[in-house]
Order: sequence, then structure tokens, then C-alpha cells
Amino acid sequence: MVTYPRIAVIGCGLIGSSIIHAARAAGVAGEIAVADTNPAHRERITALGFADQVTGDIADAVAGADLVVFAVPVLAMGSAAAAAAGALKPGATITDVGSVKGSVADALAAALPDNVFIVPGHPIAGTEQSGPDAGFAELFQHRWVILTPQPREDDPYLEAVEQLADFWRKLGAQVDRMDAAHHDLVLAVTSHLPHLIAYNIVGTAADMEEVTQAEVMKYSAGGFRDFTRIAASDPTMWRDVFVANKDAVLEILGRFTEDLQALSRAIRWGESDKLFDLFTRTREIRRGIIQAGQESPEPNFGRDKH
Amino acid sequence: MVTYPRIAVIGCGLIGSSIIHAARAAGVAGEIAVADTNPAHRERITALGFADQVTGDIADAVAGADLVVFAVPVLAMGSAAAAAAGALKPGATITDVGSVKGSVADALAAALPDNVFIVPGHPIAGTEQSGPDAGFAELFQHRWVILTPQPREDDPYLEAVEQLADFWRKLGAQVDRMDAAHHDLVLAVTSHLPHLIAYNIVGTAADMEEVTQAEVMKYSAGGFRDFTRIAASDPTMWRDVFVANKDAVLEILGRFTEDLQALSRAIRWGESDKLFDLFTRTREIRRGIIQAGQESPEPNFGRDKH
Repeated sequence: MVTYPRIAVIGCGLIGSSIIHAARAAGVAGEIAVADTNPAHRERITALGFADQVTGDIADAVAGADLVVFAVPVLAMGSAAAAAAGALKPGATITDVGSVKGSVADALAAALPDNVFIVPGHPIAGTEQSGPDAGFAELFQHRWVILTPQPREDDPYLEAVEQLADFWRKLGAQVDRMDAAHHDLVLAVTSHLPHLIAYNIVGTAADMEEVTQAEVMKYSAGGFRDFTRIAASDPTMWRDVFVANKDAVLEILGRFTEDLQALSRAIRWGESDKLFDLFTRTREIRRGIIQAGQESPEPNFGRDKH
Repeated sequence: MVTYPRIAVIGCGLIGSSIIHAARAAGVAGEIAVADTNPAHRERITALGFADQVTGDIADAVAGADLVVFAVPVLAMGSAAAAAAGALKPGATITDVGSVKGSVADALAAALPDNVFIVPGHPIAGTEQSGPDAGFAELFQHRWVILTPQPREDDPYLEAVEQLADFWRKLGAQVDRMDAAHHDLVLAVTSHLPHLIAYNIVGTAADMEEVTQAEVMKYSAGGFRDFTRIAASDPTMWRDVFVANKDAVLEILGRFTEDLQALSRAIRWGESDKLFDLFTRTREIRRGIIQAGQESPEPNFGRDKH
């Protein structure tokens, strides 16, 4: 059943293109328009043939749209919204997929008119690949989407929020609602710090003088290769995340560093019981994640089976 | 073709049991004896039926063996070797699979007689699972095994090294030779630091007051879940690695921490070009690892395809 007769997706990278594939597969969209400012992306989108309208002009794409999804890097949300503002259909639902919610919610609210429903959102899903070719319909299956609605209690707004939640559920996702500030703290732990640490360890390994890059690559199956996956994520997207969520990231990074110094000290002084206790405790967390349906139970992520 | 008429595997965890499965599949062993000091392990090994002899007595297992593989945690290598010493067949090849080579090579040399060939080794392969049920024959396919032979140039020793390399190749591995100290530095980068960082970040996330463990698990697909895989590795094995390779680990950890502080500073001062440059550079390393045949090219490690 069609949830939105016309959807406009602004920015067609991994997430934007996956939304289009998933919406097509679920039959929840009538027509789908895409705006992307990158001419090479537009050429690929046209060749892939998954959109009804492909344009470089955001106002053209959002004209008449019942749902507008901003899927651009978080620091580009404000200007994309400003470009859309004058062309929006009154009563349209406006959402986004940004990894930071506080600053994006502010940027959308500042740029957009009062006669649309702004419901910021964030699907906790992705791969290390980027661009319009990276999308696939199953990306959101069993994943969580967090909506951070505005503090409004009027019925039309609550209905718009519920309709958007319904849209995401039809794409295979589970939906939670949360305060934007709490979202930004939770994601600093479960996503932003992990990316920062992964980028950092890959950088450290690449810069060693005594160990060659060829050696790092050859012997990476000892653990290092796992980190290179998220350290291969889109550089623009992640630069923006760290700028936009600076306070929460620095707070969590401070705790991580404290804990790492304690661990370093335990190694230096041979406090092996402390090491053993931590290493035992961390096993439980993975079991919980597998039970929560957020991870493959296969050894090595199942990567050996291909 | 049988490389060794009788093999003794001492310690039957993930690596020990995988060696047995792989050796059976390749037909390189006549009979295979297993010694494990854990009665629950012995019961499972007997039930699984993959060994010709299952014993708790190391001397019984190594008696008459042409190849002895010590596959116990690195700090247990010395006592396991001491228990084997009196029963070894003259001219037998003795190897191990420990993740640290300097201290293990010393422990083996100190415990064992002069009439055997000691060739320390390390297969760079594994999963996050442990115990005799975790092993599988394909674990070493396309992976590297590093041998760190003693500084001996006599022909019988060189032949023993070459025969062991041949054994590993028949199990599907590629073989390199290296100085033990260099091995310990390389692996500190590609394996020990990654495990330490993974254990640490999972511990930090578990200890947050403002974010619940349930939230950490639900929203872990943002990146965190990747780290929980290696943080679910065997606690005893990894405690021993950090004790036994303390100097190299602390050296590499110092570099990692320096780099992380520079990254933290770049975030605090909004130096987004520095972030972008690092995030772009790290992508190349993953491409190299995939080209080196050490990683799946599938997005998300292929974990979505099951």
C-alpha cells in the first residue's frame, strides 16, 4: 500500500539509494524523485534506472512531494533544506538520515517553513561503501531507525510522525523515538567513537617505520582487518559527524582514553587478573548483541563462507 | 601424502582442533594424538571422534610423535614443553602456534632436549570462538603462517623447517619466515593492539551510566558491533599475550595514543581538513588487504547474506 504518493530523496549515496530500493520493493511510494548535486551520481542514477525523476535542482525534486528525505552529509543539511524551502508542498513530511540529530534538527527548523512537518530521523544501518551504486533494498531489515520528533503534541504532527514510523517499518526497520541530545550521546558510543578509533588505528599502523604497509596487509587477519572496514567509510560524511557532534564525541573519547590508560598500566605492571576480568566481561556484550538480532552469530561474521 | 606418521597436538582449542581437522582433510598425518588437561575438553574430543588418542598426559601423547604442536596459551608453553621433554622421540620436530614468539621460543629452548628440532610458529588465523568444538578444516586457507626458526644452519634443522613449512602449505596456508623479535612487533600492530583496543572500547561502552547496555546492544550496528567480535576472544589466551609481549604492545599503544590525542585536538578545534585527510588515507589500506587476499570484498564482511 502506498504510504506517500511522491517521495523526494535529496542526496543519493548509500543510504539515499537504499531507501529508494527498499521503498520500491515494499511498494510504499508512488513516484520517487532524486536530487543530487554531483553530476557523476546523476549519471549513475539514470543508468541504474531506479528513480522516476533525476535532477540537480533540489526545488524541482521536492515540488509536490509528500515525503522529503534529506540524505546528505550532516553539515550540508542546512543548505539543502534552504534550497528546498520555497518549493515544499504544505503539509509535507520532512525527514533526514543524519548520524547527528541535535544540530541537524536545528538546521532543518531554521531553514524550513512552518507549514511542513519536520521529523528528524536516523537509520542505524550502513556498509563501508558509498555512492548510488552501493544501495540495496535489504539494508534496513532488522535494523533500528531512531526518530527524534520536535516537542509538539498537535494531532497533525503526531500523525505525520506515526506515518513516517510506518514507512520505515514497511522498509523492514524497527522504530524508536528519542530526545535528540540523548541520541547524540548514544550514537557517540555505538557509532562515532568506534569510527574514530578505527580510523586512528589504521592511521597508526600505516605510519609505522619498523613495520611495512605490506606486512600490515599480509598479517591483518590477526584482528586489524576488522577495523579497516569502518575506516573505509565515506570521508566527507564522517568529517561532518565529528564536527557536528564534537561535545559528545570528546566526552566519550575522554572516558575511552582513561580506560585505555588503566589497561596500559595493568599491562606494564603485569596485573593479569585485571586483564582477565575485562576480557571475560566483554564476551557477554557480544552475546547480547547477537540475541538482540543486531549481529550474525557466525564465527568471523560469516566472512569465511564465500 | 603423509608428511608425519604421528602428530601430537598439545591443547585442543580453536587452533589445535582446526589443525587436526585440516591435517585429516589434507591426508598429511598418519595418526593424531591429543593431550588436553581439561577433562571437559577431553570428553568433547572423544565425542567428536577426530583424534586417534585422547589423553590428559602430555608425555603419553608425544611418545613416538614425529611432529609435536603446542597449542596452549603462551604462558603455559614452558610447562607443557617440560612435561613433554622426557618422552620426545629423538629427531622429532617441535612447533607451537603461540601469538608471541620471542618468549615462547625461549621457553621451548629452555625446556626441551638438544636432540629435537624446535621451529616456533604462528598461524595468523582464528575466529572469536574457543574450545575443541570451534575448529574447522578451512581455517588456514589463504592465511599466513609465520615460522621463526632458530639461528641454525645445519642441514637436518633446515630440512625440519622446510618439512614443517610444507605441512602448513598442505593445510592451505602460505608460509613466511621471520626473526622472532620482528614477528612480535608486527603482530603487536596487526593483532595485539587491535584486540586491546576492542576490549577497551567494549568495556568503556559497558560502563556508561547515561547510556544503558540495552541501548548499546540495540544500536550497535552503527559500528560498535564490529569491535565486539574480537573482544569475544578467549580471555586466557589474550591475557597471556599482553603479559608475554608487554614491551612491543606498550610501544605500539604509545603511538596509537599519541595519534588519538592529535585527532582529539583536531576535533576540538574544528580542523576538518585533518580529519578528511586521515579518513581518505585509511580507505587505501583496506583496498590493499582485499587485494592481498586477506579479507572479503563483500560489504559488511558479507554478514548480511545469510
